[in-house]
Amino acid sequence: MTDRIKEILNYYKSENPGVLTNLARLLNHGRLGGTGKLVVLPVDQGFEHGPGRSFAPNPDGYDPHYHFRLALDAGCNAYAAPLGFLEAGAADFAGQIPLILKANNHDVLHAEEDPIGGQTASVSDALRLGCVGIGYTIYPGTIHRRLLYEQLRELTLEAKSVGLVVVVWSYARGGDISKQGENALDIIAYNAHIAAQMGANIIKVKLPSDHLELDAAKKVYEENKIPLKSMTDRVRHVIQSAFNGRRIVIFSGGPKRDSDEEIFNDIRAIRDGGGFGSIIGRNSFQRKKEDGIALLNNVMKIYSGDIK
Amino acid sequence: MTDRIKEILNYYKSENPGVLTNLARLLNHGRLGGTGKLVVLPVDQGFEHGPGRSFAPNPDGYDPHYHFRLALDAGCNAYAAPLGFLEAGAADFAGQIPLILKANNHDVLHAEEDPIGGQTASVSDALRLGCVGIGYTIYPGTIHRRLLYEQLRELTLEAKSVGLVVVVWSYARGGDISKQGENALDIIAYNAHIAAQMGANIIKVKLPSDHLELDAAKKVYEENKIPLKSMTDRVRHVIQSAFNGRRIVIFSGGPKRDSDEEIFNDIRAIRDGGGFGSIIGRNSFQRKKEDGIALLNNVMKIYSGDIK
Amino acid sequence: MTDRIKEILNYYKSENPGVLTNLARLLNHGRLGGTGKLVVLPVDQGFEHGPGRSFAPNPDGYDPHYHFRLALDAGCNAYAAPLGFLEAGAADFAGQIPLILKANNHDVLHAEEDPIGGQTASVSDALRLGCVGIGYTIYPGTIHRRLLYEQLRELTLEAKSVGLVVVVWSYARGGDISKQGENALDIIAYNAHIAAQMGANIIKVKLPSDHLELDAAKKVYEENKIPLKSMTDRVRHVIQSAFNGRRIVIFSGGPKRDSDEEIFNDIRAIRDGGGFGSIIGRNSFQRKKEDGIALLNNVMKIYSGDIK
Amino acid sequence: MTDRIKEILNYYKSENPGVLTNLARLLNHGRLGGTGKLVVLPVDQGFEHGPGRSFAPNPDGYDPHYHFRLALDAGCNAYAAPLGFLEAGAADFAGQIPLILKANNHDVLHAEEDPIGGQTASVSDALRLGCVGIGYTIYPGTIHRRLLYEQLRELTLEAKSVGLVVVVWSYARGGDISKQGENALDIIAYNAHIAAQMGANIIKVKLPSDHLELDAAKKVYEENKIPLKSMTDRVRHVIQSAFNGRRIVIFSGGPKRDSDEEIFNDIRAIRDGGGFGSIIGRNSFQRKKEDGIALLNNVMKIYSGDIK
Amino acid sequence: MTDRIKEILNYYKSENPGVLTNLARLLNHGRLGGTGKLVVLPVDQGFEHGPGRSFAPNPDGYDPHYHFRLALDAGCNAYAAPLGFLEAGAADFAGQIPLILKANNHDVLHAEEDPIGGQTASVSDALRLGCVGIGYTIYPGTIHRRLLYEQLRELTLEAKSVGLVVVVWSYARGGDISKQGENALDIIAYNAHIAAQMGANIIKVKLPSDHLELDAAKKVYEENKIPLKSMTDRVRHVIQSAFNGRRIVIFSGGPKRDSDEEIFNDIRAIRDGGGFGSIIGRNSFQRKKEDGIALLNNVMKIYSGDIK
Repeated sequence: MTDRIKEILNYYKSENPGVLTNLARLLNHGRLGGTGKLVVLPVDQGFEHGPGRSFAPNPDGYDPHYHFRLALDAGCNAYAAPLGFLEAGAADFAGQIPLILKANNHDVLHAEEDPIGGQTASVSDALRLGCVGIGYTIYPGTIHRRLLYEQLRELTLEAKSVGLVVVVWSYARGGDISKQGENALDIIAYNAHIAAQMGANIIKVKLPSDHLELDAAKKVYEENKIPLKSMTDRVRHVIQSAFNGRRIVIFSGGPKRDSDEEIFNDIRAIRDGGGFGSIIGRNSFQRKKEDGIALLNNVMKIYSGDIK
Repeated sequence: MTDRIKEILNYYKSENPGVLTNLARLLNHGRLGGTGKLVVLPVDQGFEHGPGRSFAPNPDGYDPHYHFRLALDAGCNAYAAPLGFLEAGAADFAGQIPLILKANNHDVLHAEEDPIGGQTASVSDALRLGCVGIGYTIYPGTIHRRLLYEQLRELTLEAKSVGLVVVVWSYARGGDISKQGENALDIIAYNAHIAAQMGANIIKVKLPSDHLELDAAKKVYEENKIPLKSMTDRVRHVIQSAFNGRRIVIFSGGPKRDSDEEIFNDIRAIRDGGGFGSIIGRNSFQRKKEDGIALLNNVMKIYSGDIK
Repeated sequence: MTDRIKEILNYYKSENPGVLTNLARLLNHGRLGGTGKLVVLPVDQGFEHGPGRSFAPNPDGYDPHYHFRLALDAGCNAYAAPLGFLEAGAADFAGQIPLILKANNHDVLHAEEDPIGGQTASVSDALRLGCVGIGYTIYPGTIHRRLLYEQLRELTLEAKSVGLVVVVWSYARGGDISKQGENALDIIAYNAHIAAQMGANIIKVKLPSDHLELDAAKKVYEENKIPLKSMTDRVRHVIQSAFNGRRIVIFSGGPKRDSDEEIFNDIRAIRDGGGFGSIIGRNSFQRKKEDGIALLNNVMKIYSGDIK
Repeated sequence: MTDRIKEILNYYKSENPGVLTNLARLLNHGRLGGTGKLVVLPVDQGFEHGPGRSFAPNPDGYDPHYHFRLALDAGCNAYAAPLGFLEAGAADFAGQIPLILKANNHDVLHAEEDPIGGQTASVSDALRLGCVGIGYTIYPGTIHRRLLYEQLRELTLEAKSVGLVVVVWSYARGGDISKQGENALDIIAYNAHIAAQMGANIIKVKLPSDHLELDAAKKVYEENKIPLKSMTDRVRHVIQSAFNGRRIVIFSGGPKRDSDEEIFNDIRAIRDGGGFGSIIGRNSFQRKKEDGIALLNNVMKIYSGDIK
Repeated sequence: MTDRIKEILNYYKSENPGVLTNLARLLNHGRLGGTGKLVVLPVDQGFEHGPGRSFAPNPDGYDPHYHFRLALDAGCNAYAAPLGFLEAGAADFAGQIPLILKANNHDVLHAEEDPIGGQTASVSDALRLGCVGIGYTIYPGTIHRRLLYEQLRELTLEAKSVGLVVVVWSYARGGDISKQGENALDIIAYNAHIAAQMGANIIKVKLPSDHLELDAAKKVYEENKIPLKSMTDRVRHVIQSAFNGRRIVIFSGGPKRDSDEEIFNDIRAIRDGGGFGSIIGRNSFQRKKEDGIALLNNVMKIYSGDIK
């Protein structure tokens, strides 16, 4: 148990030892185990976007075992997926990699400005499948966000009482948020803060752009000269907004990147801005396995400092 | 146990001893302990307005421990916050300051004439975190207020049965209330009365202006010559409206003030009008810690009579 | 919050902040508040031995309010009693002194070698009465101890989940324990250890004599030369047996004392042996109030070091 | 509401207003309404002793309506009976007299040294029948008393939560209590105290003799010269033992009386010793109705002071 | 994940992935991780035999943290203890070593030919403390074994449904089993088989002697010439009896050994007879820490084949 992991666990003193144990399992697994950084493989795109869109670029990904092996072989800290994908491999790969059960999901079969999704798995599922935690997506900014917050609240209380870690994906959406605004710095920081206030142990947000979406926020950001030009500065602001570094925040890619090098620069910004790591889905499983592993390993090396 | 605290507890004879005990803890803690006046530090602005808008003016406020320490060092009666902020410090500061868990919250990511928010914490959370009470915000005047009233009713019943104090933030909003009307005397008095009728033990409203919003009310106020020119008179009317002094009503700032001296004059009006105290958030944590403490201590001195 | 209290709370890191909060309330109340020592007034003798035997020596003690006032005026850390006694004063003295609800009781109307008692109050009662914890008596050594252990287990799980402290009175009894053996050092140490293993936050045992009851234990004590001649040594061994000082152990009088000076010597031994304090019932309420307070205050002065 | 009733209600401040309301109904009904004294008609002898033994002396008593009318016509404060008797008249006499549902009963069809009885009615029954309270009999001193205490505990918690008054019949019995001992002063005082500690609002015991049963108690009674020669003194001691007058204690006849005058002398003793009243069954319904009413009215006149 | 661990997990295909995950955690932790052999540190002797008898030989063992550290430093696969010992360190050592919660315990304060013990912890406790499994002791042969079997059955069903491994300690006792018979080969084999039939995932028995206790068994053993002269043969028979190697069986020392070399010979016999490992309590914590670690490491080296 490294000092850094002890320090991070110390941020979660109000949780019971069960939650701390599963948090430690997550932080201590894989190539980044013990560093306090983490890389998670998430594969819920089949549900969220449809299977063809998700897996045609690398058809091996249709097979649920593929993702267990990818996460394992790449040395990820954890693999996160909906109920079915986990059920399809949890016995086969039992004890080999920490699992996070995505407990709600949304599909694109009905056009909605304000996505809401539905709860598709339970705390009991997470326990019977041997997961270390559950995941849940909220969409702050949507008209139904109240329903999402209330479902998350009940899940969180139950999950923590049985020692499961709670991971919250937080994405602002909805009619009042512009497309550009979904990645705006003020919005991403707000997303992270809301998730933390809801009791999330780990928070997943997108990387922010330098756009500011809300007028009232923009005024304050400008008055207080909050640095936002570099990605590193913006990550730092998001981390600050999630309890000043006392909550684990991990990032997915924001604006589309043209090359792996751009991805690596993002990783450097996360690392240098005090972020805790990445959640990398499409960029890892939509290419050949060896390429996915290569990408993930480069990412891990940047986090561990082996690559600058 | 001072005579005044006994008198106040006596207003709540229908509550069980558990509620009375937590009410006494609140009233007896901090610099104003025993006076029957109270000053509460609330920090839910991160959720309600976004983290940057809330904490950029004094970046120490991003850290949840900061607010525990501010409330403690200033000698506040209690600290009120959403689930995440309390979880981030409840173990570290256990037993040092009475805590109120804000059990619903609202964000500004969706423009709504009729805010509704969602329940973001439970009575079980309040018990496991060692809180003395829960807080809940209602928006009389909004089209969804029925949902709020009904959620509050269930929470209140459960909270009181386990000895928790119920604090209600009551703000009229919605399409039929003008911006000016939100602070109108008749509206604020109405807000306080509805919260009291819902079973609130402690009521939080804004300071009222001398505007009268509702025509039917205006007629009666004028016929009966209800004094409303001075803030002291208006506070007196609000206190009267909340069961004639038999319910604890505390105030936040209403119309924006230009100087601390204006704030202090408000405090004098609350004191002289029979108000029970203040809930002071942004004015205390959006400045440097020593300045926040200085402000709060001046406020407390006005309440205690050490400053006239 | 003194360093010593922080150190003690640190022994209970697996508990939720609610339990820590109530533990802190107990440790910070009264004249010994903050020292890490505690003196508790227990009055369950009316139930356990009958009212006449308990209160005739000082008839003021028939009145339940008397004991609230005695505990308050003497500056005790807490008052512990069965349901009825607490109900008779919990509203009148709400918030004035930490209360511990004795959740099981035994009477002497049926001669039993193996006492068992019954559960006479619930966790819900403790919450509605505003208690900081519940108390429960186990009788290791009795044929029915299994029932007591299992009832305690369920109560403990429920109590801790709502933030209540669990106090266990542990007295070996039953056909295989000699009268002398009930106070034997090996037995008292065993009592303390069992209570700690059951999850007690605070443990109450009798002061031990230098007798050793169990042959198998006697052999080990003699081989390992466990010091047992002085009361201080014996207290030290009991504290060691209760997780080496990581659990709060408080003592009642063991063998009957002839004078207050003998009681004070016991207190010195508890203090010097690392004990956490005393629970003093009959010696405090079976004499006139001013004499009871005088005794308790001398006891507290010994604990605080004001008297050597 | 007389001052005396207010004073009595004040003893029950920890109870919710529902319990206080039903307690007030009881205390304010009938000829003794408002005096703080009460006379209750109990008819559970049919179950406890068999119908013939109970009703043959006055066959009108086989009819459940008879007892409702008797209680009404005599001006009793309440009528207490098992489920069936109440069901047979509760609709007919709805709102005419406070009802107490005897929730457990014992028959004599199986010879037992240690009676235990069974729960024969529920809190739900009490509510649907419009009762002001429930009654429950405990037998301290029996080997199974633990079961009775635990059943009473659960009933009491439930009953009070819905505003019902809890009346406890408390009679020591069992292998270790001599026949004479069942009425001994120390035992009756102990019975009353146990019922009070269990949370009873109203306690029913037998009138005590001057016998002392328990050696340990006898020693203390003699040392402390507790007066016990006159019935008045003995009643005073029982009242003292039930929280020093803070719990309503009512008495049934103890040793068999030869004449009504002896009964009246008992009533005088109850009155002068600070007792709260009587529960008079067989002496009222086992004689002709007008004689029963005459007796009850004389009793009431003694309580009210109309007869010395 | 080694082939041997995969093979072992394959024996438990009927269990859900949660149980398999925790089983894998156990088998993959520590110095023997991945070998399919395991060494567990159990410390329940304080409860079972008393604290002095257990810890006086090495007083560091009074401190609950000592055993966490011992298990960690020696590289054990898991640490098993009652509720209190785990609560005293579960937060401090969260995620550092797999924990097994001993869910029932027995003390020696009442002489019993037929021990029964009591359930002292729950599945909920195991989850909130982050355990991989629960432990439970059955005493086949005792008159109350039915209670134990039924309590185990319920616990097992609940534990497995939430993914916890079930470890059963199985010791024949009771009036019909001779002292010698408690270690007899036919009895130990029977113990192991009963535990396996009850659904245990891991079984703990004593090392068997060459005695045969039951006449009916003896006849068959002799007829079929079951080899029992060497310990290796006897271990092989026990393993056979526990589903022919399809259930993990671990051994504690049987007959008292005079030297570590004798212990090591036992370990060799367990290894060569197909046993899965050892549970070593007193021999590891009743000596100085470095000696305990040295012993455990030699044991592990024998299991891993590093020592022959």
